[in-house]
Amino acid sequence: MAFFDLSPDALASYAPPLDEPADFDAFWARTFAEHGSGDVDLRVEPVATFMTLVDTYDISWRGWNGERVKGWLLLPAGASGPLPAVVQYTGYSIGRGMPFDKLIYVAGGYAHFVIDARGQGWATPASHPGTDDTGTRMAGAARGLMTEGVLAPETYYYRRLFVDVVRLVEAAGTHPAVDPARIAVAGGSQGGAMALAAAGLASHRGVEVAACSAEVPFLCHFTRAIGLTDAYPYKEVADYLAVHPQHRGQVMDTLSYFDGMSTAARASAPALFSAGLMDAITPPSTVFAAYHHYAGAKEIEVYPFNGHEGGRGHQVERIMAWLARVLR
Amino acid sequence: MAFFDLSPDALASYAPPLDEPADFDAFWARTFAEHGSGDVDLRVEPVATFMTLVDTYDISWRGWNGERVKGWLLLPAGASGPLPAVVQYTGYSIGRGMPFDKLIYVAGGYAHFVIDARGQGWATPASHPGTDDTGTRMAGAARGLMTEGVLAPETYYYRRLFVDVVRLVEAAGTHPAVDPARIAVAGGSQGGAMALAAAGLASHRGVEVAACSAEVPFLCHFTRAIGLTDAYPYKEVADYLAVHPQHRGQVMDTLSYFDGMSTAARASAPALFSAGLMDAITPPSTVFAAYHHYAGAKEIEVYPFNGHEGGRGHQVERIMAWLARVLR
Amino acid sequence: MAFFDLSPDALASYAPPLDEPADFDAFWARTFAEHGSGDVDLRVEPVATFMTLVDTYDISWRGWNGERVKGWLLLPAGASGPLPAVVQYTGYSIGRGMPFDKLIYVAGGYAHFVIDARGQGWATPASHPGTDDTGTRMAGAARGLMTEGVLAPETYYYRRLFVDVVRLVEAAGTHPAVDPARIAVAGGSQGGAMALAAAGLASHRGVEVAACSAEVPFLCHFTRAIGLTDAYPYKEVADYLAVHPQHRGQVMDTLSYFDGMSTAARASAPALFSAGLMDAITPPSTVFAAYHHYAGAKEIEVYPFNGHEGGRGHQVERIMAWLARVLR
Amino acid sequence: MAFFDLSPDALASYAPPLDEPADFDAFWARTFAEHGSGDVDLRVEPVATFMTLVDTYDISWRGWNGERVKGWLLLPAGASGPLPAVVQYTGYSIGRGMPFDKLIYVAGGYAHFVIDARGQGWATPASHPGTDDTGTRMAGAARGLMTEGVLAPETYYYRRLFVDVVRLVEAAGTHPAVDPARIAVAGGSQGGAMALAAAGLASHRGVEVAACSAEVPFLCHFTRAIGLTDAYPYKEVADYLAVHPQHRGQVMDTLSYFDGMSTAARASAPALFSAGLMDAITPPSTVFAAYHHYAGAKEIEVYPFNGHEGGRGHQVERIMAWLARVLR
Amino acid sequence: MAFFDLSPDALASYAPPLDEPADFDAFWARTFAEHGSGDVDLRVEPVATFMTLVDTYDISWRGWNGERVKGWLLLPAGASGPLPAVVQYTGYSIGRGMPFDKLIYVAGGYAHFVIDARGQGWATPASHPGTDDTGTRMAGAARGLMTEGVLAPETYYYRRLFVDVVRLVEAAGTHPAVDPARIAVAGGSQGGAMALAAAGLASHRGVEVAACSAEVPFLCHFTRAIGLTDAYPYKEVADYLAVHPQHRGQVMDTLSYFDGMSTAARASAPALFSAGLMDAITPPSTVFAAYHHYAGAKEIEVYPFNGHEGGRGHQVERIMAWLARVLR
Amino acid sequence: MAFFDLSPDALASYAPPLDEPADFDAFWARTFAEHGSGDVDLRVEPVATFMTLVDTYDISWRGWNGERVKGWLLLPAGASGPLPAVVQYTGYSIGRGMPFDKLIYVAGGYAHFVIDARGQGWATPASHPGTDDTGTRMAGAARGLMTEGVLAPETYYYRRLFVDVVRLVEAAGTHPAVDPARIAVAGGSQGGAMALAAAGLASHRGVEVAACSAEVPFLCHFTRAIGLTDAYPYKEVADYLAVHPQHRGQVMDTLSYFDGMSTAARASAPALFSAGLMDAITPPSTVFAAYHHYAGAKEIEVYPFNGHEGGRGHQVERIMAWLARVLR
Repeated sequence: MAFFDLSPDALASYAPPLDEPADFDAFWARTFAEHGSGDVDLRVEPVATFMTLVDTYDISWRGWNGERVKGWLLLPAGASGPLPAVVQYTGYSIGRGMPFDKLIYVAGGYAHFVIDARGQGWATPASHPGTDDTGTRMAGAARGLMTEGVLAPETYYYRRLFVDVVRLVEAAGTHPAVDPARIAVAGGSQGGAMALAAAGLASHRGVEVAACSAEVPFLCHFTRAIGLTDAYPYKEVADYLAVHPQHRGQVMDTLSYFDGMSTAARASAPALFSAGLMDAITPPSTVFAAYHHYAGAKEIEVYPFNGHEGGRGHQVERIMAWLARVLR
Repeated sequence: MAFFDLSPDALASYAPPLDEPADFDAFWARTFAEHGSGDVDLRVEPVATFMTLVDTYDISWRGWNGERVKGWLLLPAGASGPLPAVVQYTGYSIGRGMPFDKLIYVAGGYAHFVIDARGQGWATPASHPGTDDTGTRMAGAARGLMTEGVLAPETYYYRRLFVDVVRLVEAAGTHPAVDPARIAVAGGSQGGAMALAAAGLASHRGVEVAACSAEVPFLCHFTRAIGLTDAYPYKEVADYLAVHPQHRGQVMDTLSYFDGMSTAARASAPALFSAGLMDAITPPSTVFAAYHHYAGAKEIEVYPFNGHEGGRGHQVERIMAWLARVLR
Repeated sequence: MAFFDLSPDALASYAPPLDEPADFDAFWARTFAEHGSGDVDLRVEPVATFMTLVDTYDISWRGWNGERVKGWLLLPAGASGPLPAVVQYTGYSIGRGMPFDKLIYVAGGYAHFVIDARGQGWATPASHPGTDDTGTRMAGAARGLMTEGVLAPETYYYRRLFVDVVRLVEAAGTHPAVDPARIAVAGGSQGGAMALAAAGLASHRGVEVAACSAEVPFLCHFTRAIGLTDAYPYKEVADYLAVHPQHRGQVMDTLSYFDGMSTAARASAPALFSAGLMDAITPPSTVFAAYHHYAGAKEIEVYPFNGHEGGRGHQVERIMAWLARVLR
Repeated sequence: MAFFDLSPDALASYAPPLDEPADFDAFWARTFAEHGSGDVDLRVEPVATFMTLVDTYDISWRGWNGERVKGWLLLPAGASGPLPAVVQYTGYSIGRGMPFDKLIYVAGGYAHFVIDARGQGWATPASHPGTDDTGTRMAGAARGLMTEGVLAPETYYYRRLFVDVVRLVEAAGTHPAVDPARIAVAGGSQGGAMALAAAGLASHRGVEVAACSAEVPFLCHFTRAIGLTDAYPYKEVADYLAVHPQHRGQVMDTLSYFDGMSTAARASAPALFSAGLMDAITPPSTVFAAYHHYAGAKEIEVYPFNGHEGGRGHQVERIMAWLARVLR
Repeated sequence: MAFFDLSPDALASYAPPLDEPADFDAFWARTFAEHGSGDVDLRVEPVATFMTLVDTYDISWRGWNGERVKGWLLLPAGASGPLPAVVQYTGYSIGRGMPFDKLIYVAGGYAHFVIDARGQGWATPASHPGTDDTGTRMAGAARGLMTEGVLAPETYYYRRLFVDVVRLVEAAGTHPAVDPARIAVAGGSQGGAMALAAAGLASHRGVEVAACSAEVPFLCHFTRAIGLTDAYPYKEVADYLAVHPQHRGQVMDTLSYFDGMSTAARASAPALFSAGLMDAITPPSTVFAAYHHYAGAKEIEVYPFNGHEGGRGHQVERIMAWLARVLR
Repeated sequence: MAFFDLSPDALASYAPPLDEPADFDAFWARTFAEHGSGDVDLRVEPVATFMTLVDTYDISWRGWNGERVKGWLLLPAGASGPLPAVVQYTGYSIGRGMPFDKLIYVAGGYAHFVIDARGQGWATPASHPGTDDTGTRMAGAARGLMTEGVLAPETYYYRRLFVDVVRLVEAAGTHPAVDPARIAVAGGSQGGAMALAAAGLASHRGVEVAACSAEVPFLCHFTRAIGLTDAYPYKEVADYLAVHPQHRGQVMDTLSYFDGMSTAARASAPALFSAGLMDAITPPSTVFAAYHHYAGAKEIEVYPFNGHEGGRGHQVERIMAWLARVLR
């Protein structure tokens, strides 16, 4: 992919106005009050693996409407806490996968939580059951999840998911091995959007994240992203509007409740972003739009010749060094 | 697409053994008894259109679990019945669309019913609401519907859809303008599979179809189709098994309750099939497999140089002439 | 296709200067005088179909040089006129097809004429003979018709076609069931260009169209279109100039006699345009260029997330409502 | 392209029965008598080029119906004959191009004639006018020339071209610098088919070719070729039959008058063929089918890992060595 | 990718004859004697990472001609041996990458060695220098390494690499934390081929591997693989032969010294293979060909709906369970 | 390819500042002094071909470090000089090929030298050995040559090649049939870059070129080219930087010693450039950047609708006419 988005100079100051509804905060307050409160009830079942250095657990907690959401917990074998923790959110299509899919955080000495995003997981082998999504499949929705229930913020897929997301932070803090004051959230692409949502919305549950790593975050600056790129998953929304042009206003209104610019603007923890200048999936201008609105201390790493893969191992090193610093 | 499947000679006698479970009939009997019985309650709302020659209705009836399913009814303007009817089922991804999308049947003097397949419609503009699907979105399912709930026949998407399908035949027969003894079912691709399902399973509801037109039907001879072709939607199943190889037996078992070979083998109405020898979406051998098992009088039209589009207008003429003959 | 052309704001006022030769009107006057006059001699043969609601006719009339051009005429069964009429022109590659391919106009109570564009029809099944093109196949011309005879306006393919086009309006007015004061012309893509040509050039034959529907019209603003997009058929011209760069001036000169901006600028009937902002085949700026030059009353419907398919059924509804308004 | 056709062993003996009509010879006798006789009238105009070693001429001769066909003649500068000559036919889409496009034959000391195939030349820059094709453009024909007039052998494009082809051999023999007893015909792909046609049909004009080089010849064994491959130009025929399935018999009947197996079976000059085992454009089995029917002395060079490009320079060396041998 | 290779039944017994030269063993004996002997001189430099659970080392050893080859060593933090070890070889294009790219073996308690294959690493971010390849870049070689020096076994790239490969096993055994009797070799694709080479050729250095995991191994059964598939890297050889057809015999002769069927036939350690039935990169028949010749105890895991990615996490679990079994 | 680069107007004045290091001239002076001096020792072996009009020679000369570089020399048969000469450099991937691959220069009466670029030739059949490249294959380099040794100007591939290039001019001047005052250099794409290098750097060897034809030259204005286009070979650099982002400064520094803007700025011979406005491989702005810096008399031919193929035969005519003029 050649360069197609704003120049590095323009990105450095690209901070479009927030595109959010007046009742954004009220919407989320109501959402958590009605669909995301009560005992988070983290359950933790040991799983036998061949990993002698890691204690592995199949976990679940209460997410949207109290439904149980699945995931993994990895701890350094025999660790006694309290440990700093990383709550990892996953990219679009990626479920929790195998417990050994990402060992970097536990190798670094962190308690590592992984969400199994509801109704996802179609791209990842998995040995354990994932999280079903109970939402109605809307007639006419594009294949995938980007337009599921998109005709109203109340029914939108990501409303359910963001409740699950925040409640996992809450759940992590209840684990005896975890130091609740040192919980980082982290993820790339959709996982980055979830991390921003956790950072910006956790206060609705009275919890706080200590750090937020958002690699090439998705779901940011919808009004620019949709139509700027042909790449999926943003293209799911364009596909939907191509067959249902009459719903454009409604759809854009719904999305404005979930925009990463707005969640970023409500966050306060230190953040590390990354962007690829050839990234057609989450174009760099949409990442910078969220970055510039991020309300906490922040840094961003730019990879000029990379696409959505970002810096890969280079960014892993960058994140780990940064986590060591911000989580002390 | 070059020729890639069996030769015309081999197709002429390609009748692989049925691949069905011993309790196939029991499963469907139970399905209709538990989830597809009761008053079908056809509701018919006139819709104002610019079509002076056609009376148009937004309809609904009770399908799976009594849920209301949407669709269209078109009648020649001012027609007094009883008319012969065509119940049309749609291809994968296609909802009911606009009321004027297919005018051929009403122009031919038939009452024309169209289903809005639950949770579909992502490829077709529509001015009226479609049918939502209430099934849970299974974790790990491929995007689309082919693997929704596929780990058990009880939860499989097509179980819900086939109940909707049969009940529409039932509903059509209750309309005063329709002659219940002259109801044809018709469709292409997934619509062909639904037509075969209607023809083969309607007896569970005590009704009968008078004719069955199955163009390039989908969902036939799964054990051969999956892996024979790279084309979607069969590929959705292969995609699922690529990430969840451990569920292969379970998946193939579920599919065996929905195979068009088996529904065909239970049909008795006269049928017209079509096949394209370059069809990678519903390969000709899978169509012939169902054709040879079809238990009623049958004809098949073969298009050597066509793919999944089949004979297009030529097949329309073929169908209309055949309908005129078999419906008298 | 992502957005690639001018922004909505820029489109709203994008009216480039006409790019037409001084003798544009003289050229067309001479063309009709020498190659498009005399008795139009509409012939109408009933065709037996299964459509009980429609009277169908295989028609022909005298077009370029008096050659007979083929088409369809559909009338509501048993209709006694005079009826308003729609003369439909087809997209590039599309012949008259089957008589039942587009039933919307007759269902709406209109007399419906369809042209079989000379030498086209390679994309559409057809049961009846089409119109051959008698023009010499020029050495070096790109495959297709866009560069046939393009080295001089006198020999260009579209000169012959536009005579056929105007003469069909003339012919339609001679049919006893048709009200010659209420003839609309309509078409999409190349059909839109033909509709504009009919609206702008019909006066050369002393006739008038009552309305002009041009969906995503082709052949507009050649100097911008060629090279702006990689999509065919505009690309045929670029392909030709890639091997014959020495003929660039001559080719652009020829095209300037056929530009939809110029035919639009000579029209007076009410018009309805449509444009898709992701349309790479007839880019929106080229559509708007013609729209802004259109000399009659005009409206345009814009589909932001659609390509060349435009609004599909939504635009059908829009056209039918508009026709009902402007034709009475 | 991976191997997709018959194995080397199977090719070695792949000689399917001729697929030709009973009146094949009568058809061609009549064709030449009615449309390809009379004075061939070779005209030769010197062209100034920068090539000091080559005398270059813009030529024409009387082909189909006496129409003038264009081409090049290259002679070693200042050569006094009589020289052996190579008459070169071109691949599909390729016109005569520039006079210096192929200098190998004149560098080898041969008189070199090049045809400008009527209506072709869309892929090649050219400084001089080419040969127009006067045939009517048939309604519904696929883009390109493979289905032009294909509904009857009398109107088929290749009937006109093959007359031009044979008459060029005749014309070459009338040039004072050429030894008429040492005229080779040569070409690749469509050029190979023309070379076979020259070799097999020249006797209708009372002339003879002394050698025939057919590289990866096209237009051979139509009944197998069409549908075996997705590649154009054979695919043009499949495209046509996809929209006009009702004309299949007629089309295959027409093609049987032009099959390279049949022209090969009437040739007597020594021949050199080539085939690429990964050639999807002229699949090796279709080349071998013609090779095995070739009635003169013959050799074939096989390139296992090449597609339609065949052996490129390696085959040039092979041809030049072979020409030196067979032309003495 | 649809199924394209032999059926499961045919694969179960597909054991083509070995295609190896008479001096295969002599060639390798001479190779190690002349280019792969002397002190292996493992050097181990600690690398600071954020991985508190892992001790990480930048290593090098003497490979081909005594040149230093680079890699990683990972040990469980603070482990005192002797540990069982896994020597991991990498896929084509993949260098050693980051030290944390694959943590599964160390998490399982193994000493984990990784090679940086000479001249590779173009697909993987890396923080530390890799291994240069000193071989001359052969004129005309295809891009990549498959045809580097391929005109003679003495100069072929894989000769150098296989020496590096075997010497790493030797080097691993010299590390004080490693139990030399419990060294497994493992890899996928090219890494699988290297693992087979280690297993089959290590005896030339007087060492032995204790287990061999070859996932979808590459470089097996060249005479079938080349031309069976269009996929790279096998296609590099076909690309070379397409331009240099005259070297076919020489090339196939060279490859026969490196075929995984032959190295497998000389191995004795227990082995675990995997194959994907839709794998176009290392087609299943070529994997089974090596499997059936493997001379030690062996198992194979087949993934019917997977391509070259094989079973991913499922195969990881399979391998880890198997390693636990065979290394103790 | 649609237009994607600067407009014709902007190109007409697009002269970005040179991007060159202060020691550019010193670097090249040192390079020639240390690696490109001494007797050039042209060797010329007659090759038997079938070309009676051409005397053909397999040649070699001393290039980088005195290594022998291969090539062709073609002379008009029996020519006695001194002749003007054309030294032809080849495009990326193209070796010397067959001696008869390009006959235009010898047909025009020139002595014609062709280089076999070291380590290239993977796209061209060749009957004679090419030039190996002795440079070390750098770990992590992208496939191809663009990043070979790119971490320092001293080790970069093009340093070796540019020495070979200049020394060929030197060698040509030593041939008795050649007039050393009338040596033109010529080439397209990479060959154009080599021609510019010859024109700009030959003075380091005390020789001069008399004319420089640079068609669509590659390796110009690296800082813009890389990332502007997705096309290879520029993309090789982006690919490298995508996996090794930490080396960006070093890489761009190395490239600045080889930029065609800088070699052009040191040339004095008359030059002819060409550019295609749809050229994604060597985008027109990068060509114009070099053109505007070219220090001698200069002309440029622009092909608006062509890509990297440029004007093909039209440009051949243009070059030959220009050569005749500038070489007298």
